[in-house]
Amino acid sequence: MATTLTRGKYVLTRADPGGQSVVLTDGAVAQTDGEIVVAGDYADLRARFPDAEVVGNGRQFLMPGLVNAHHHGRGLSGLLLGQPDGGLETWINHSWGRRPVEPYAMMALTLMNLIRSGVTTVMFNQSAAVRGMVWDEAQANLRAFRDAGVRVAFSLAFKNQCYLIYGDDEDVLRRMPSDLADSLRGMIQGATIPTEDYLSMTADLIREYPADATDMVRVLYSPQSYHWADEETLGRMAELARRADVGIHTHAVESFYQRLYAERLHGQTPIRRLYEIGFLGPKVSLAHGVWLTRDDIALLAETGVSVSHNPSSNLRLRSGVAPVLEMHRQNVRVAIGTDSTSINDDDDLFQEMALAVRLHRPPGLAEPHLTSHQALHMATLGGAYETTFGEGLIGSLEPGKRADMLLLDWDRISSPYVAENLDVLDVLVARARAADVETVIVGGKTILDNREFRTIPTEDVLRAVREELSTPEPEELTRRRSLASSLEPYLRDYYADWAAPADPMYHYQSLT
Amino acid sequence: MATTLTRGKYVLTRADPGGQSVVLTDGAVAQTDGEIVVAGDYADLRARFPDAEVVGNGRQFLMPGLVNAHHHGRGLSGLLLGQPDGGLETWINHSWGRRPVEPYAMMALTLMNLIRSGVTTVMFNQSAAVRGMVWDEAQANLRAFRDAGVRVAFSLAFKNQCYLIYGDDEDVLRRMPSDLADSLRGMIQGATIPTEDYLSMTADLIREYPADATDMVRVLYSPQSYHWADEETLGRMAELARRADVGIHTHAVESFYQRLYAERLHGQTPIRRLYEIGFLGPKVSLAHGVWLTRDDIALLAETGVSVSHNPSSNLRLRSGVAPVLEMHRQNVRVAIGTDSTSINDDDDLFQEMALAVRLHRPPGLAEPHLTSHQALHMATLGGAYETTFGEGLIGSLEPGKRADMLLLDWDRISSPYVAENLDVLDVLVARARAADVETVIVGGKTILDNREFRTIPTEDVLRAVREELSTPEPEELTRRRSLASSLEPYLRDYYADWAAPADPMYHYQSLT
Repeated sequence: MATTLTRGKYVLTRADPGGQSVVLTDGAVAQTDGEIVVAGDYADLRARFPDAEVVGNGRQFLMPGLVNAHHHGRGLSGLLLGQPDGGLETWINHSWGRRPVEPYAMMALTLMNLIRSGVTTVMFNQSAAVRGMVWDEAQANLRAFRDAGVRVAFSLAFKNQCYLIYGDDEDVLRRMPSDLADSLRGMIQGATIPTEDYLSMTADLIREYPADATDMVRVLYSPQSYHWADEETLGRMAELARRADVGIHTHAVESFYQRLYAERLHGQTPIRRLYEIGFLGPKVSLAHGVWLTRDDIALLAETGVSVSHNPSSNLRLRSGVAPVLEMHRQNVRVAIGTDSTSINDDDDLFQEMALAVRLHRPPGLAEPHLTSHQALHMATLGGAYETTFGEGLIGSLEPGKRADMLLLDWDRISSPYVAENLDVLDVLVARARAADVETVIVGGKTILDNREFRTIPTEDVLRAVREELSTPEPEELTRRRSLASSLEPYLRDYYADWAAPADPMYHYQSLT
Repeated sequence: MATTLTRGKYVLTRADPGGQSVVLTDGAVAQTDGEIVVAGDYADLRARFPDAEVVGNGRQFLMPGLVNAHHHGRGLSGLLLGQPDGGLETWINHSWGRRPVEPYAMMALTLMNLIRSGVTTVMFNQSAAVRGMVWDEAQANLRAFRDAGVRVAFSLAFKNQCYLIYGDDEDVLRRMPSDLADSLRGMIQGATIPTEDYLSMTADLIREYPADATDMVRVLYSPQSYHWADEETLGRMAELARRADVGIHTHAVESFYQRLYAERLHGQTPIRRLYEIGFLGPKVSLAHGVWLTRDDIALLAETGVSVSHNPSSNLRLRSGVAPVLEMHRQNVRVAIGTDSTSINDDDDLFQEMALAVRLHRPPGLAEPHLTSHQALHMATLGGAYETTFGEGLIGSLEPGKRADMLLLDWDRISSPYVAENLDVLDVLVARARAADVETVIVGGKTILDNREFRTIPTEDVLRAVREELSTPEPEELTRRRSLASSLEPYLRDYYADWAAPADPMYHYQSLT
């Protein structure tokens, strides 16, 4: 069995949210057959493994591969495809106006962006549900992940209510002209998958990718959110997931309207409801969690739930800023993801860490702030929990773990000078970006080699996408865009008296 | 007189905060001797000026040069030089620990970053005041701007109180051991310039660069902030500026502590005080303005003051988020700048626009949000006012104006596809970054030509900086860093009972 040494001027072997991250200087990681044997001083390891191939020039920054903890694909962003930013409740319907792209190419394009930003594992949630196409799309997506050599925690999103509003869709449909209402009923029908179909598809995928046979794929259940599935179905999925010992990924309290929906219905927050129906547990992960209360956070800590923080998406879709400092304070497991809606529209997870670190800095000298160590933990070990791969498999460069790692151009990051008194992790988070990623390794296999993709024929992918999109936009798109636009005023009207919760949250407040 | 045509697939001739920005398709700008003659359809202008040299390949995005409306130099960031991010009140003293760099090279490095991000005019505030070096540094800085061919609104910052705290420095000095206090008194003395020296230096610069003889330099007065100069000196400078018909640039209510200082002293906000002493006027510009009240904003609107918004810096230094939407609502002139402390530590003003547009999106479908049109106006015409060059000279591509413009790689920005229904300015602000800037022209002169610097010998600059910094850090730096660290607990203690204002502002609020 051949041993490889991957070396760096700095080697982050383990990120620690408490600030005790382990960084070696002039270090290296030895791996055999994709598994890490040891991390240590480069000179020592070189002497111990004299025949090992050496990767890295010794001037780079070596660190664990990143986990993008919430993603829906779309290497071609929603914006580019015709869906402008907006408030979540109106924005979501404008997805109808996104020009479709052949799924395999689209996923390959997504993976190019993700790999380029140092991502080796993705929490992927397939949300573009067009009835009849879900299975084929899932197969295309999984094939793209396999071909690219990227780990995936894979789920199909399921929805069986609240397609237009948080409430009975008919409440808004009956307020509009009947031709518009009928068109919208058609859209809803087209997006609905029968519950049994969904469950059997997910069960099939779980059988196809058993956790004891592959460390590249995990399959999860995914009711799309508390409000997008009824409580009975939520309970049923929780039970099925427990029996199969697989995870659940769901959206939660992304906007304050979502919180109000549950409060109006049951007098309880969505998290409290999920707790009471026995949905929460250590294999459950929530995306967003913007409008959590302090008590909600206590319930997440108690049940071992993970939260994927998506700061860019929460700004772009006008959701707010999630109380991540409070989650850290209560020891909730927190991960980080771009939600296919990153601040620069390019899925750069380094940029996402930097944004998080900048955003969670409340005014006042006495307040805590999000640290670089916490951000790096979110993007590595936090994501290991979230994706259910687990801390034993990925997320740090320690003996017995999979060799998922990346080399960054520290020369560029530290050019032309870095003072001696700084924490190199502060410098890394402040300045490293996707463009600095040189080499990406998953399970010992190099998938990006000095910025060259080794597993994705990038030119072919780009040519295929460009060719597919070189024709004029289909007329159907115009109709779908206009449908979403026609719906918008009814939604604004429906939500007009839903006021933001009065209890102070960690978010913006308008000057009054 | 030779005429040049600069062409673009899109040409933004004028950004309008009300959403009525003018964008030509397949357009061009004709200029003669650095002055814009006309903007219009490329084919028409080609026919009209058949002998004109043509710049641009016709696939790019052509727009007005950007104005970075608040800057202190430091092409090598404070972070890299040894000053980690922190709350403004403690962070500012850690500037003592920044390793010094020869000023001309440092400014040249700064200008490389600025030009690379499409900046053609800078509001430059020289703040690193070491007594005896101010004048030489000013000359080096101005020489670097002249050599680079970038317009500068130039000021020397002046401070004569509150060096350590917002209050009497002795209040904190007497709480500490006498050797520490004495060292700090030495630091204060070294940073103090006698008022008359400051005034005569600024008067000399105003004479050296009269507005009727140069359109490349404007000199402004700059008391550093309300609290950093006494009211008598503030009034005196306002009077001198009025007589000389020059502008004033100052910092204002960057942190809530700064607001509390004035309120504790006079029962009025700093802006109300500045108003009452007759300081405010149409040639006055304020940096930051984070903790403005609605009434403050009304006073700024009434007096025609400009505000430079610095969203990255305000996050990094824990100041908060400025009420920019309210400023727009009240028709205050708003500009945008990176304050040498941008989110990615690289002075990318396109990134700064994108951050602003993302940040000012309060939750709730009914709330207004900052638009791409507003962000582009802030970075062009807003900055024209702010720097006192004025809207007649720079900020748009209209007849009679200076030919300050830039060409962006629209192929990259729009790759591999852009849907037909989008506003191209939304796409531009969401996706364009410094790396997309190909060509930069100031007054008709190309200073960045297809990513090649034409006025700065970049290799020489980088070599000089690297060489200067290749020696070990001077021991004096360790002493200065330790002095700032020793001071920090006293500052925290001093501000411990200064609570954030209770009136809701546009900023973060911790979950309680």
